[in-house]
This record gives sequence, C-alpha cells and structure tokens, in this order.
Amino acid sequence: MGMWVYDFGDDRTRGGREMRNLLGGKGANLAEMSKLGLPVPPGFTLTTDLCTHYYRNDDSYPPELAGEVDASLAAIEASVGARFGDAEAPLLVSVRSGARASMPGMMDTVLNLGLNDATVAGLAARSGDRRFAYDSYRRFIQMYSDVVLDVDHSYFEDILETRKLDKGVILDTELDSDDLEELTELFLRLVEEERGEPFPQDPRAQLWGAIGAVFGSWMNERAKTYRRLHAIPEEWGTAVNVQAMVFGNMGEDSATGVAFTRDPATGEKVFYGEYLLNAQGEDVVAGIRTPQHLTRRARTAAGDDKPALEETMPEVFAELEAVYQRLEAHYRDMQDIEFTVQQGRLYLLQTRAGKRTAKAAMRIAVDMAKEGLIDRAEAVRRIDPASLDQLLHPTLDPAAERQVIASGLPASPGAACGRVVFNADEAVTLSTQGEPVILVRVETSPEDIHGMHAAKGILTARGGMTSHAAVVARGMGRPCVSGATAIQVDYETETVSAGGRVISKGEVLTLDGGSGEIMVGEVDTIEPELAGEFGELMSWADEVRRLGIRANAETPGDAETARRFGAEGIGLCRTEHMFFEADRISAVREMILAGDEAGRRAALARILPMQRGDFIALFRAMAGLPVTIRLLDPPLHEFLPEGEDDLADLAASSGIEVATLRRRVGRLREFNPMLGHRGCRLAISYPEIYEMQTRAIFEAALTVAGEGGDAVLPEVMLPLIATVREFEILRELVDRIAEEVMAERGARIDYLVGTMIELPRAALRAGDIAGEARFFSFGTNDLTQTTYGISRDDSGSFLDDYRRAGILNVDPFVSLDAEGVGELIEIATRRGRETRPDIKLGICGEHGGDPASIAFCETLGLDYVSCSPFRVPIARLAAARAALGEGAVEGEDG
Amino acid sequence: MGMWVYDFGDDRTRGGREMRNLLGGKGANLAEMSKLGLPVPPGFTLTTDLCTHYYRNDDSYPPELAGEVDASLAAIEASVGARFGDAEAPLLVSVRSGARASMPGMMDTVLNLGLNDATVAGLAARSGDRRFAYDSYRRFIQMYSDVVLDVDHSYFEDILETRKLDKGVILDTELDSDDLEELTELFLRLVEEERGEPFPQDPRAQLWGAIGAVFGSWMNERAKTYRRLHAIPEEWGTAVNVQAMVFGNMGEDSATGVAFTRDPATGEKVFYGEYLLNAQGEDVVAGIRTPQHLTRRARTAAGDDKPALEETMPEVFAELEAVYQRLEAHYRDMQDIEFTVQQGRLYLLQTRAGKRTAKAAMRIAVDMAKEGLIDRAEAVRRIDPASLDQLLHPTLDPAAERQVIASGLPASPGAACGRVVFNADEAVTLSTQGEPVILVRVETSPEDIHGMHAAKGILTARGGMTSHAAVVARGMGRPCVSGATAIQVDYETETVSAGGRVISKGEVLTLDGGSGEIMVGEVDTIEPELAGEFGELMSWADEVRRLGIRANAETPGDAETARRFGAEGIGLCRTEHMFFEADRISAVREMILAGDEAGRRAALARILPMQRGDFIALFRAMAGLPVTIRLLDPPLHEFLPEGEDDLADLAASSGIEVATLRRRVGRLREFNPMLGHRGCRLAISYPEIYEMQTRAIFEAALTVAGEGGDAVLPEVMLPLIATVREFEILRELVDRIAEEVMAERGARIDYLVGTMIELPRAALRAGDIAGEARFFSFGTNDLTQTTYGISRDDSGSFLDDYRRAGILNVDPFVSLDAEGVGELIEIATRRGRETRPDIKLGICGEHGGDPASIAFCETLGLDYVSCSPFRVPIARLAAARAALGEGAVEGEDG
Repeated sequence: MGMWVYDFGDDRTRGGREMRNLLGGKGANLAEMSKLGLPVPPGFTLTTDLCTHYYRNDDSYPPELAGEVDASLAAIEASVGARFGDAEAPLLVSVRSGARASMPGMMDTVLNLGLNDATVAGLAARSGDRRFAYDSYRRFIQMYSDVVLDVDHSYFEDILETRKLDKGVILDTELDSDDLEELTELFLRLVEEERGEPFPQDPRAQLWGAIGAVFGSWMNERAKTYRRLHAIPEEWGTAVNVQAMVFGNMGEDSATGVAFTRDPATGEKVFYGEYLLNAQGEDVVAGIRTPQHLTRRARTAAGDDKPALEETMPEVFAELEAVYQRLEAHYRDMQDIEFTVQQGRLYLLQTRAGKRTAKAAMRIAVDMAKEGLIDRAEAVRRIDPASLDQLLHPTLDPAAERQVIASGLPASPGAACGRVVFNADEAVTLSTQGEPVILVRVETSPEDIHGMHAAKGILTARGGMTSHAAVVARGMGRPCVSGATAIQVDYETETVSAGGRVISKGEVLTLDGGSGEIMVGEVDTIEPELAGEFGELMSWADEVRRLGIRANAETPGDAETARRFGAEGIGLCRTEHMFFEADRISAVREMILAGDEAGRRAALARILPMQRGDFIALFRAMAGLPVTIRLLDPPLHEFLPEGEDDLADLAASSGIEVATLRRRVGRLREFNPMLGHRGCRLAISYPEIYEMQTRAIFEAALTVAGEGGDAVLPEVMLPLIATVREFEILRELVDRIAEEVMAERGARIDYLVGTMIELPRAALRAGDIAGEARFFSFGTNDLTQTTYGISRDDSGSFLDDYRRAGILNVDPFVSLDAEGVGELIEIATRRGRETRPDIKLGICGEHGGDPASIAFCETLGLDYVSCSPFRVPIARLAAARAALGEGAVEGEDG
Repeated sequence: MGMWVYDFGDDRTRGGREMRNLLGGKGANLAEMSKLGLPVPPGFTLTTDLCTHYYRNDDSYPPELAGEVDASLAAIEASVGARFGDAEAPLLVSVRSGARASMPGMMDTVLNLGLNDATVAGLAARSGDRRFAYDSYRRFIQMYSDVVLDVDHSYFEDILETRKLDKGVILDTELDSDDLEELTELFLRLVEEERGEPFPQDPRAQLWGAIGAVFGSWMNERAKTYRRLHAIPEEWGTAVNVQAMVFGNMGEDSATGVAFTRDPATGEKVFYGEYLLNAQGEDVVAGIRTPQHLTRRARTAAGDDKPALEETMPEVFAELEAVYQRLEAHYRDMQDIEFTVQQGRLYLLQTRAGKRTAKAAMRIAVDMAKEGLIDRAEAVRRIDPASLDQLLHPTLDPAAERQVIASGLPASPGAACGRVVFNADEAVTLSTQGEPVILVRVETSPEDIHGMHAAKGILTARGGMTSHAAVVARGMGRPCVSGATAIQVDYETETVSAGGRVISKGEVLTLDGGSGEIMVGEVDTIEPELAGEFGELMSWADEVRRLGIRANAETPGDAETARRFGAEGIGLCRTEHMFFEADRISAVREMILAGDEAGRRAALARILPMQRGDFIALFRAMAGLPVTIRLLDPPLHEFLPEGEDDLADLAASSGIEVATLRRRVGRLREFNPMLGHRGCRLAISYPEIYEMQTRAIFEAALTVAGEGGDAVLPEVMLPLIATVREFEILRELVDRIAEEVMAERGARIDYLVGTMIELPRAALRAGDIAGEARFFSFGTNDLTQTTYGISRDDSGSFLDDYRRAGILNVDPFVSLDAEGVGELIEIATRRGRETRPDIKLGICGEHGGDPASIAFCETLGLDYVSCSPFRVPIARLAAARAALGEGAVEGEDG
C-alpha cells in the first residue's frame, strides 16, 4: 500500500466509491463492497495516476512502485494462505482494467495469472481436480499470450480444434486432463516459436507483463474508437485491479453469473440475471454458451427448462438476493453485479450501475423517486437526454403484417429495418452511402464496434442478454436481437437462413428489439408513446429547467409535432425551405434570373401570396407562442437548376434560351457559396426580396391576429449580419414594410427584429449590433464553420483523420466547441447584454438539441435553445439537468 | 458671429488653421490668411457641426442660425460698403463648400449670389460696365439654377449657342451687353417654365437656397463616390463659406489664377502657376480656356507667346510673390493658392497644401528638410506611402521605339498603356474584365471619377495642369496627359484623331504622363530609379521605423527584387507556387491521384529534388536573412486538371483511364474549398507531403550553410492551424525530419517552427498554440474571410453594393478591419505573448503592404510585416510614419 497502490478486501480497504477518478469504477466499487463487509476476494488497485505517469514518462513506472506492489501481494498471500509461485499453495490472481468510465470489452483482462509448470500441480492438488488445473493453465496461456505477448488466439483455437478432431469429440468438456496437459505443452511450444523466447514462468514477470498490457491497451485502436464515440478524454487513464482468483469452474457446485437488481430492458422491479454452472465469468459475457436464468420466475416466463440458480443453489441464491437489495439501497441505483460461486461459496467480483435501455432508465428513475430512494431532481439527473432518442423513434405497429422468420432475445429495444450485411466494415461503407443497415453476426466482439455504430440494428445468433452485442447495443441505443439460435449465419456465402428462408446480403430485414422478433422486409411503424413514465419525468424536468425550449420548424406539421413534444415557440423558421416547393420554384427562378429590379418585383409579387399562406398556417399552429422567422439565407444559385433537363424545362417555362440561362446560372455560381452572396447580403443588393417576405409575414400575422385567437408573436430574424450597418439598413426596411402593412390593415401587432450571430465578426461587434437588435440567435452551424474554417459539407474527407489523430474528440458540428466557438458566444452574450440588458438570447444551430451544448448555454444564461421538433424532449431534459448543474453525460459506471 | 457661424476678414476673424475640423480646410485657411493680414475678401463660415446638425434633424437648421447669419452678413456689408439686395450698391457673395478633406470638384459652388433684376443695374453702375454686370447675372442664373434648382446647365448652353448662331459669332465675348441682357431674360423664363415658379429674386432666399444646396451636395452620388474612394467618413460633414465677391472678369486689368509655391509635378523649387485675364476663377479650373503662365521663365521654357502675369501686371506679380513666400514659410508646405485681381487689386481666395505627384512630394519633402523648413521626421510624415506606387512602377524606356502622334501637358507622371474608351462607364466595364484602359475625354468632370479610377491613364483634349483631369489624376496616381489640343475627340464615332491617325475604341494607346507624349501601340518600359531623393527619404524612414519589413516571395528573382527594395527577410514563401511549375505538375498530380501512401511517396520522391533546388536558390538569395516557408496550403484539387484536354493528357502520362481520372477529380472537388481539406489538414491526412517538404527545406538549408556564406535562417510555417493539437503533431513531424536530415549531413542549423494565425479559433486559442509555436504570422487574407464570412473570390458580386450602401468604407481585403479582424489579432497577440513573451509576431496577408494596416500592426507592437516585393518601400515608409504616430493618410488640405 502506498502512493500508487490501494488495497481492498479484509480490513485493508483504503478506497471507496468516492475515489472513482483515482481507482476507476471497478476498483472503487470493489473497495466499497469490501467496506460493506461483502465477500470480495482480496486484491489491490493500481491507480489511474499511475497510468498517466506511465504515458508521461515513456511507458515507465516510478521507482517506488515495485516495493508497493510487493507489499500488497504479500497481504493477499497472507489473506488467502497461498503464495505467488508456490508449488504447494499457489496464489492465482486476475488482472483487470478499470477506467473511470465503462469501456465494455475494450480493455484486456488476464485470469489465472500465477500458473506455471510448477504451480499447476499445486492447483491440481489443492482443488483435487487435475483436469480443472490444466484447463485453467491452458486458458491462462492462451489469454496471456493473446493479450500480453500478441500471439493471436486463433492459433490456440486451431490446436484445440485439431486435438478435438483427433479424439473425435465435439465439446471442450469432453477433453480429459491428459489432453489438456498435452495442450498446455503444445501451447507453450507455440508461444516460444512465435515469440522466440519461452512463455514466462515467473509469476512476478507474468504480473508485470499483464499490468503493462492493461496500460498499453488504454491506447489501442478499439479503446480509442470507444473513447471517440463516447467523448472520453484520453487523459483520464485506466486503473489496474489485481485480485485473488476465485473459480466458478471448480465443478458442479461452482458457478459464475451476472445479476441486475432490476430488469435492464424494461426497468421492471424484478431481480434479473443469468449464470452458468462450472464456468468462468468470461464465458457468460462472451456469449459462447447460452446461460440459465437466476430466478424460477424468469425461467418459467421464458419457457426455459434449464434450472434457475434459485433451484440449483438455493442458499447461494438467498445470499445473493440479500446482497443485491443491500447494494441497490446503498448505491441508490440499479446495479449490475458479477459473482462467482466457488465450491458453494459466493464471491462478488464487481458491482456497477447497470447499463439499461432508455425505457428502463426512465422507469427505474421514476419508480425510485416514487419509492423515495432518490428525489425527483435526481431522477431527472439519472436520464441521459441523448438516450431519449430511442424512445422518441417509432416502434413497430403491432397491427402491421409481419413475416416473422425467427426470434431471439430482446436485447435492446426499438425497431430497426435495413439491408443485411455481415461485417462491420461493410456496415460502415453502406451506411455512409445513406443506406440503413442491419449488421448480422454469429456474435460480436470489440472489433465490430464501428459497424454496430453504423448499423440501424444488430442481430446475433449467439450470446445472452449480457453478451457483448447486447450490452454495447443498449449503450449505443441500437435495437438488437441477440442469441437467435434458430438462425444460421454463413459468412462464406453471405447469407442468413431461418425458418426455411435464405436471406442474402443486401436484402431487407426488420428487427424488433423489444420482442426479439426477426422479420423479412419492411414493417410499418407507429409513433412513440409520450405518456406514462416519460410524461412524468418530463414534467419533473420542466419544473427545474430554466432555459426555454423552441423548435426549428417550417411546416405546420412540424410545428404541431414540436408543440406536442413541448416546444415553447419556433426558434428558427427557414423561409428558403418554402421557396423550394414545387408550385413556386419556377417563380423563384424567374425572380433570380430577372435582368432588373422590375422583373424581380414581378416574380416576387407572384410568390407573395404563397409565402403569406405559409406564415398564416404557421402562426395558427403556434398561436400564443413566439415564432422566429429568418429571412432568405442561401445564395440564389441554390435555387437554380444544374442539369440539362432542368435547364430545358426552365427555358420552356421562362421563354429564355437555354444558352442564356446556362450563362446566367454560371455567373451566379460561387467558389465558396458558404462565404458568398447570401444572407442579409442578398437584401443589401436586392431589398425587394426581404420586402416581399416582410410583407408576407405581417399580412399573415395580421390575418391570424384578426381571427381572435391567441396572440401572434412574430420575431423577424436577419441572417449573416457582420456589421451593425447591415442590421440598421435592414431593420429600417422591416420596420417600414411592417408600418405600411399595419397602416393598410388598420391594426397593429407587436414584433421584434433581431439577428443571427453566426459570424465571428458579429460576435465581436455584438455590443454595437445589440444597440439595434432586440434578440440574438446564435447560428452555431455557421459560427462553427467560420470559427474553425471548416466547411461542414467538406469535412467528411478529413474529420475522421482528425478523430483518429486525437485532435477532435467530438465532431464540433455535433457538440459545441466550448473553448473556441463558445468563447465567441460568451463574448457576444456579454457585450450584447452590456448594451441591452434585456436582449433575448437563444441558439438555433443543430447544437440546440445536443445536451453538452445545452449545458454550455445554461452556463451562459441564454434564454432558450431551439432544435428539431424530434429533439425537443431531449432538450427539455438536458436543460433541466443543466439547471441542476449536470454537464455533458459522461460514460456510465464501470 | 455665434455658435454656428465664424467670421473672417478685417478684424473679425475668429477662426484659424487649427480649426480645420470645425471650419473645413477652406474656411480655416481663409481665417488664417486674414489673421496674417493678407488681402482676403470678408466673409463667414458655417461650421461642419451645422452640417451634422442638419442631417441629424431631417435637413433643418437650429432656430438661432438665421440671426447669426444676419449679423455676419451685416458685418460684410459694413466692410465692403454694399448691401444685400441694394439696387445702388449691391453686395454679391460666393457660396462655397469646404470640408475637412479636399474633395475637388465634388461639392458645388455658387458665384455672384445677390444678383437680381434690380441689383444687376447697381452692379453695372458701380463697375461702369453694363456688359460685365449682365454677363455675371446670366452666369449666376445658370449656375444657381443648375446647382440649387436642379435645372440642367445644358439648357442654358443651348440658348447661348442659339444666340451666338443668330448673331453669327463664335466666342461668348463677341456678345454685347444687350445680347446678354436678353439672354438673362430667356434664362429666367426657362427657369420659370422648368420649375413652375420664378427664379428667386430675394438675395436672402438665394443665400439660403445655396447653403442648402451645399449641404445637400455632401450626400450626392459624386461626393459619396469620392468619399468611398478616399475613405472619408460621412460623419465629417462640410462647412459652407460665404464670402464677398471679387471679380477677375472686370476687364483687362482683372484676372484670376492659381499658383503653386513649387512645381506640383516635379517638386522643383520654382514659383509656378497659371492665370486668365478677364475671367472668373472657375474658368481656370474648368479647363475651358487654356490659361497663361505666371512667370516669364515658365512661359519661355514652354515656348508660349502669350504674356505671363509677371509681364502683364508686374506689381500684382510682385505682391503675389511676397504672398507665396510668406504662405509657404508659414505653412511649411507647398501651397496651392487661388487669387483674383479685380481692377488691379490682388485678392486671395484660398490657400491649401498643394496636391502633387509622388515624385514632387518626395522632392519637396527632402528639399524642405534640407532647407531646414521641416525636420526629417516631418519629411517622412509628409509622404503618403501609397503614393510611392507611382514611383515604383515602370516608366517608358527612353530608348524604346515610340510612334508619337501628339503631345499634351504632362499632367500626372508615369507611363500607361491600354485600350481606348470614351466614357467612364465603359472604362469600368472593360477594366473589370481585366483589360487595361485609357480613358479619352475632351475634358473630365466629377461624373467621370469612377472611370478615371478604373483607367490606367487619362487623356484630355482640353484643360491645363490644374484642370479637373490633372488634379484628380495626380490625386489618384494615374498617369495623365491633359490639354492635348492637337487631338480631336469624337464621341459620336468613338474615335480620337491626331497627326492624321484615327484611333478607334479598343485600339491601344500609350501615354507618358511625365513628358505629355501620346503614342500608338504599346511601348517598352524600364524599372524605376530608387536612388536620389527616394533613397534619401527611405533612409530617413528606416531611421525611425520599428517594424521589420519582409517580403512575400517564392522565386529567387522576386527575393532579389525584395532585397533590393530593402526587405529584411522573406515573411511568406508559398510552396504551392512551386508545385505548379510545368516540370513538376505531373508528379504532383500523380501524388494526388495515387491510391495509397506508397504511391504518394513514390511521386513525392520525384518532387523532392526539385523542391530542394527551389529552396537552395531561395536560401542563397536571402543569405543572412530569415526565410519563412509555409508548407503546402491549398486543397489538392487545385492542382488537378479540369478541362477534357488536360484530363486526356494526364491519362496519357499517368496510364490511368480518363473515366477513372474524372471520377477521382470529382471526388476531390469541394463545396467550399476555402474551408475544406487544405493547409495543415492535408498533412494530418497525408503526413508524407510535409515530410517531403521539410526534408527539402533542411537538405537545402544544410547545403547552402555548407557553402560558407551568411547564415541560413529557415522558419517553417504551418498553415491553417485551428487547434494546438494539430500544431503539436506537425511540429513533431518537422522536428523529426529536421533531426533526421541533420544527422545524415552531420551538421546542425538553427530553425523555428511557427504557424499562420488565419482562423478565428486559432486567434482565440493563441495562448495554447504559443506554448508550441515559436512565431505567429497573421494570415489576414484568410482571417478576414473567416471573420467576416466573406469569400474574397465571391465578394465582387456584392462588395460594390456594400460600399454604395455605406456599409464598408474600404474593402476589408485591402485595409485591415481593425474592429473585427483587428480585435482577433489583438487577442492573439496578447495571449500569445502571455504564454511566450518573446514570440515573434508578423503579418503576411496582403494587408502587410497597406499603410493603414501597417499603422495598426505598429499599435499592436508586432515585430514585422511582410508584403509583395514591390510594396516593400511603401511598407518601410508606412512603418516609419506609424512609428511617428501617423495612421492612415487622410485626404489632403482643401
């Protein structure tokens, strides 16, 4: 025990759950369970600080570390009455990684460390089971060689398969102790051939090798990918846990399992889990054997005939029940517990907050608040807003016709439909082309992460509810059906067959992750249910949130969806979307191609009634709530046809020759349209465009106001302002037209004129601009493009290289770049308020629906965020959490 | 006299030269001359504050103004013994504008105000010259109607022409007093018909009309254009000067003229000027009659036989000589003096610092410093750095063959060559298409300003050295030949003929503004002379300047030019220019189109020796001075062919099919290349490119260092950095390759690695980046593009609208936007220095050669500016002026 090493077990426990950053999730919780007096095999944790030290010092350790490790090892030896390398009573340990955030399957683990040609005999003698000892040894050699010595595990599997073929047996368990002893010899020889030196026989050398491998694995590609996907900083590092081994594979009175204190798929308050008799823990997680239920109730419900733990080991089960209740009450959260039973004795190897579906998380949070275990604010804090995405997406229509070809485990809920592919790379390729994809695998492994992320849904033939596929899919919010044993996956022919049907690569499958059903073709879906726990939790969120939530919407349909989801106004109505509609695009094009102002005005006069109609519908849908309308923003050439057919059509309808049209289109083309003649610049050149739009807005507003319903609250927004003078000129234009229309109609309404802040210069000059503008809406898409100098449309070609190089942890177009773009927003907020203390401040880029960005908006005290209608609930929840002081959701426990 | 009105003349003078901002240049100098006791007709000045008040209050005056004007008028009446509207002794006044900055020809003037049907008789009686009185009256009606009542002057000219035809005479002077009296009647009738009300007969009404017209003309289009071109703020406003009339057209003992205390074209210390007998001042300026010389010496030198003022009025000339010496000594600058001789008596109507050519300015400043009139710092302050452009451009090779078809006055020096056009709009159109243009006019007027600005040179058939064309061309630095009476300009057929040659629109002419020669076709030019006064003044500038001056250069030729012009290093070597050279573009394209890293490396290996050769030549040319080399910056698709022919060539040379090539080229195309995969982003994706370039730099540097000359000082610059991590990764790359090369060569050199700061994010994160970077070079082109969100390539379509709307006074790509882009530079400078106090800071955008931007760099204390080789002397001078506390050069006196 010292600076770098923290012991746990018996009375030497120094850590606890509050030391998660230092000890990692696993280490902190092992210490915590020890302090609670639960049966945890003794061990010690090497801290995350050590990992950081390691990487900062050219992969080397501090000099005092060796002494600290020796002392802690001696304590374990004393506790379990065994010694490292002792041929009579050998100490075996597991070496596991454990970072602050869970990275399932990412980090490497070594079990049975301490075995060598001498100690294997001791293990055989002590356990009275020679077969068990050699089985452990050959597993250790394979695992250690794979993880530490970089000898591919498939070599070992080939040797094992050859042996089984020689003997004419099918299952590993049919090999006897002699077979296994010979296998260990073959394994050792293989390692020596591959590595050019013998397998390390010294347990201390093995231990240092394993520790180095864990630290090394922190920087492997899989770990980097996972961190990238989950925005986990590289600096956090991982801890290493070294713990005395206990064995679930010491015969039929031994077992290993995983338990959840509530159902992780539904959130139902039932004890839930799986176990395997005579197995090591990895066997459950790896999904190689399909495990049995813990409770009789679950077994019966599933129609399974293999006995539950409650039936095979009633005392152990009772003890486990007491433990789970104690842990859930202690942690006040649903726990995911790993246990091992060694010759009838229960050991706990891990507890952590259990991963759960969004639906389960919602139910558990609401239930626990009602049970008094947590308060409502805590319930709100418990839900990752991003996870709501799962709940807000459609599920299969129960009434829809479906052609079920097989069923598996309902591993991660939601409906998914897409083309079948059989490997992760192809999933990425196809989905990049915009194709929805279903990834079908026999089982998944960490190598498949990128493909799972790219897929709409995941189907595996093997593995339980806690298999890699199931855990990762739930974490990602991807629908998943796992352990569908009725399907046959053939990688060779790229087909999956079930129920007599053969589905080839590229054909469409639908998965129902909530029922486990696998269907051919596409199945109808229905809208999500927004009542129940969802509604309850959202109302609690609304109680605490300070930020207003608006939606980005142009159509009455979108506006109604947004309102139903709880939007408190429209934060961004992009009028150009209206210009593209089929019935008006020809008038828009004539306006653009007109040779003079008179021609433009004539075409605009034809657009006016249609645009007015758009706004009437929108104002009706949003009566009583503010509606921010952004005047025309994109460069005019975006509305023009490019292809020859379209040009010919336009020539026919406009009476202008094709050659002339082509020339005019060419003249409007720009090198960098994003930085071109667009936004308010259009109106400086062609004021008549904004005049028409302003007229349409105010005619519509006065029409709807005249209908006597709730107030119409238009907010006219000028895009791409860089200088206060632009704003002045165009505000005068808007005020003038508004006055004209109000005079014509003989009625008045209140309105605001404000601007997007979407250029660095506008942010810097916000003090001036606020002298004229009544509100700012941060257009963080364009502000990110200009601040970073990155075109979002072109960033695809290098952002991946950037993530790989560790330059960007998150895509700045998804989550706001707080230290660059964010500083400009902070400057604009401060300067804007200095000039106009009551200026209304919002954000309407796509970041408006991103929880981390919403947390940033809360710290600046903005008035509202605006996002797509579908993300409104996410924003409501994120805003509530932000008000409670929660930032971006970090990775879950682990 | 009061708050808004300042009298001058006699003992009532309240103003003086120090009150220029309030009284305008003309008013301040009239007051100053009065105080010096010089013969200035009495008058008063309405202040620029009044103009501002007028525009801020809906074109209305403060109530107390009328009383103040009445009091001042009464004082003039008392002084000259005449009364406004008095039929016996009528007071006549001139009303002239006078802003802080000279706006020649921009503002309107009214002479002879006070004349009406009654007072004209009084004027006839008092002057004893009825013809003079009616001539004045008809001039007044025409001028007043044109300027105040908006009746086009051509109507009056038509009536006058008709009258002359009726009488069968050619010259105005052939009309007698009866003719003129009848003309006034016809004029008055015309005004009444056009305006629907009679011409104002009340002198007070006339006065208020004229004052309103002066204020109104501040906002006319010509004035706005002039201000736009000269960056004069609209808020300055103009003053109005009301002054008792004196008459240069009261017979042969009267005259009017313009004098310069030194030659405004050469700077030679000779009294210089022109006059017209029996004329009003406007006649000289308008260039309608070709005036006579002041001195006998000048007349003789020009071979002119019309007598000089020295000969016609020796006493007046002697008095004028005393005045000019007094004024130059008083103002310590070359003066431009307007005078009138009324019946033998000299009056001064204006003095101001005389406009001069760059060459004259240089000579005058150096001479005056040597004469002890000013000190060297003041001499440096006197030269507008931008004007050096004229001196640094080539002049005609005296040895070149030239086909001179005519000669005119050498009105503004320099050689110009271009296609002939006959009106200003066409000059703009053609020059926008990139064609050099010579604008040919009979005479120019303020309506031609935009065309003169667009033209390379100006040729007029009429007008002297002080005509509109000559003054404006000198101000703009455009070569000009004026008063070429031997040419015939025919607007109808769009031809100019001379010496029997007819030159049509579109044909090429060459002008020598230094000699006045007009030549057919293009004539060879020679490099400018950098010695003499130029060299002297530059050495004085170098004594006071603090900023270092570097050049942007890639070729040894450019580097040598830069060194000759005084550059102290290369601030920007754009390596991509080297990639485009014919002998390597195919290797570059193969590199880009290679399918993998190995293919890229193979192509890069072929480029390496060529690139190394480039750097060897550059390092040799700049031995002993720092050379900043920017690694590859543009997106790769810029190097690829677009046209079908080029594609076919590439297919032939690369062995790749055209279709494949077209597809690959298409894939590399970007929506917004400016914000795309370029700069350091290329090297994050393809490190091998920067590795090759770094190797080329260090191999070259060590080769040249090994030659034993002055030290080689490479500074490697990484472009488009947005995050410190990018910089870290690429600095490591550069250091690694540098170490490799130095190890291979067994020798070491010093070098720096730094970055462009050209993205807003980089400016904000400068504190982090400075932790890694040894220097920052502000890439203000891209920084302006991103901060403003304006693509320079696309801004042409709207920047003109922006200038017209008063949003931008200067193009932000020409002169640094201090309050937007400038704040980012200021932030980066501050944060960079906080992290690394000795960080080297420079600027290498095109602003590096702009005097106003250089002044801004001086205020921030940057270490150097870098500009094109040609602008190095301008930058040296601007840096010196900045060190002396001078900012941008404001308009000249006026």
